[in-house]
Amino acid sequence: MDVQVGKQSLQFERAPYILSSANIVGKKEGEGPLGKCFDVVGEDDKFGQNTWEEAESTLQKEAFTMAVGKAKLKPEDIRYLFSGDLLGQNIATSFGLMDTQVPLFGLYGACSTCGEALSLGAMCVAGGYADYVAAVTSSHFASAEKQFRFPLEYANQRPLSATWTVTGSGAFVLGTRRSKARITGITTGKIVDYGIKDSMNMGAAMAPAAADVIAANLSDFGRTPQDYDKIITGDLGTIGQEILIDLLKHKGYDISGVHLDCGIEIYDADAQGTGAGGSGCGCSAVTLSAKFLKQVEEGKDHRILFVPTGALLSTVSFNEGKNVPGIAHAVVIEHAS
Amino acid sequence: MDVQVGKQSLQFERAPYILSSANIVGKKEGEGPLGKCFDVVGEDDKFGQNTWEEAESTLQKEAFTMAVGKAKLKPEDIRYLFSGDLLGQNIATSFGLMDTQVPLFGLYGACSTCGEALSLGAMCVAGGYADYVAAVTSSHFASAEKQFRFPLEYANQRPLSATWTVTGSGAFVLGTRRSKARITGITTGKIVDYGIKDSMNMGAAMAPAAADVIAANLSDFGRTPQDYDKIITGDLGTIGQEILIDLLKHKGYDISGVHLDCGIEIYDADAQGTGAGGSGCGCSAVTLSAKFLKQVEEGKDHRILFVPTGALLSTVSFNEGKNVPGIAHAVVIEHAS
Repeated sequence: MDVQVGKQSLQFERAPYILSSANIVGKKEGEGPLGKCFDVVGEDDKFGQNTWEEAESTLQKEAFTMAVGKAKLKPEDIRYLFSGDLLGQNIATSFGLMDTQVPLFGLYGACSTCGEALSLGAMCVAGGYADYVAAVTSSHFASAEKQFRFPLEYANQRPLSATWTVTGSGAFVLGTRRSKARITGITTGKIVDYGIKDSMNMGAAMAPAAADVIAANLSDFGRTPQDYDKIITGDLGTIGQEILIDLLKHKGYDISGVHLDCGIEIYDADAQGTGAGGSGCGCSAVTLSAKFLKQVEEGKDHRILFVPTGALLSTVSFNEGKNVPGIAHAVVIEHAS
Repeated sequence: MDVQVGKQSLQFERAPYILSSANIVGKKEGEGPLGKCFDVVGEDDKFGQNTWEEAESTLQKEAFTMAVGKAKLKPEDIRYLFSGDLLGQNIATSFGLMDTQVPLFGLYGACSTCGEALSLGAMCVAGGYADYVAAVTSSHFASAEKQFRFPLEYANQRPLSATWTVTGSGAFVLGTRRSKARITGITTGKIVDYGIKDSMNMGAAMAPAAADVIAANLSDFGRTPQDYDKIITGDLGTIGQEILIDLLKHKGYDISGVHLDCGIEIYDADAQGTGAGGSGCGCSAVTLSAKFLKQVEEGKDHRILFVPTGALLSTVSFNEGKNVPGIAHAVVIEHAS
């Protein structure tokens, strides 16, 4: 069996196990449909810190600590960290994980970073480079609004196409020790640019990249959408979902029966006023950890495709009139018995 | 032979080869001591683009294209890109490498990113995940000043401890095909915080992280500094160099006879007014490509330790009064015959 599958996928001979995961979210996420599933729901979105950025760092630290504890390991057992966030120069990650004193690979894939971290972490364990690694990502509504749009104090109005950045962090410990779920393959995404220029419509910006990587996954592995119990994108929201399903129909794949989106799952959009859905590096991470991974571990799902989606922009590129290209990374997660 | 060496190092059983490298720099770098060594020196630091950010993206695209060409490959032969830059949300990378249509792992390690990219690229090839990958990093004086300090139009004065961000990009193609140099091992860095708060003294912020990873490398591999022909840090500059040598003496290692720093090599500080030396993701990448890698390929050096160094800050963390922690990643490069 060859590990390189097709043009952009890998199938692991010694597929790494997901030993544990942990998640922590803010108040609003705790009030949503998944409220009861989360490990920790904060009462105050500052999480006892002075700034939104420090609050986001605290989320990463807590998620990492919980995940390592659940795996019955100590921080020093983790050989590498694969981590990132949305803020400029990855500061939530740097300041959040500094005290762990674990060798760190800092990543940036916008909201696709959870997929990127799980992919590289899986490659690392499957390659024999580590017995245990951790993949940690986060986002915070307030730090993201300040970074990408307007500080909350401006009280600006938001179009319905806008998504709501999830306050939360998810951490995953991967390793060689047996567990109930494993990463059997990955498909690594390319940057796809469909000419979207609206930073308030991220779903439309990311859907083409999601379609591209899902089609590549199905083609590389010779699978149909029905070979997955679920195909779960990160944060396309309702508008992005429609575009994704349409784009894949044009490529000859009908995923409408198996598609779910973490951004749609995490909020009750009508009741919570979250526009097109949730978004952010934390959105897919906490939803995988709190809901979808459990269903695989319990054997309710045998094989899922997890596809975090990212929109590649900064205020600088946006203000200079550049498009918002997308990227997405697909991770195949299977039940292990 | 075990691939995991000590606490934070890897020794590759099938050490990947560096098939080619390419570099492109700005006018000031072309006027420095390494001027004649670079592949391309730009006449105009905008490189025909409208903005500094687009100019930096152009550097990455050019470096990648040249490196792939020198390896007698086509872009579609490259299975993965490991790339990053200093700008918020990695925009120089996203917009520079989008057209290559190569699956991308976006990285952020501040100025250590070249070491991070070479490390992950080497792990990827040695793990059998790809026949060819590319590692690309860049920085640009004008886009970095705008991002981290002041727009050039302010004409602010700079303290002598400040470093000068290199305008340049270096690209490396790694693969399984034989060449004259290979990456035989890596040591992945942790974040080290010595409480530095001065964003105009990056050398002091990064030196402790460099000392930490160099000591880990020597300890993990059971080597002395003299087992390397050269130990080459990324961009500590003159102030950081002094601190590094002192810190390592306290740890029992005297590297003064073999230490060099890309930031010191690239400019004539007195004649060019570059303060403590060069810096940026591009600094270590272009200096390795233009000078030090050639010396390994020619067999003048048999084994070097390449240690790009990064300062982890953003304007947000800096303005919120946070420290400037550092990180550094070490790559062992050996002559292959």
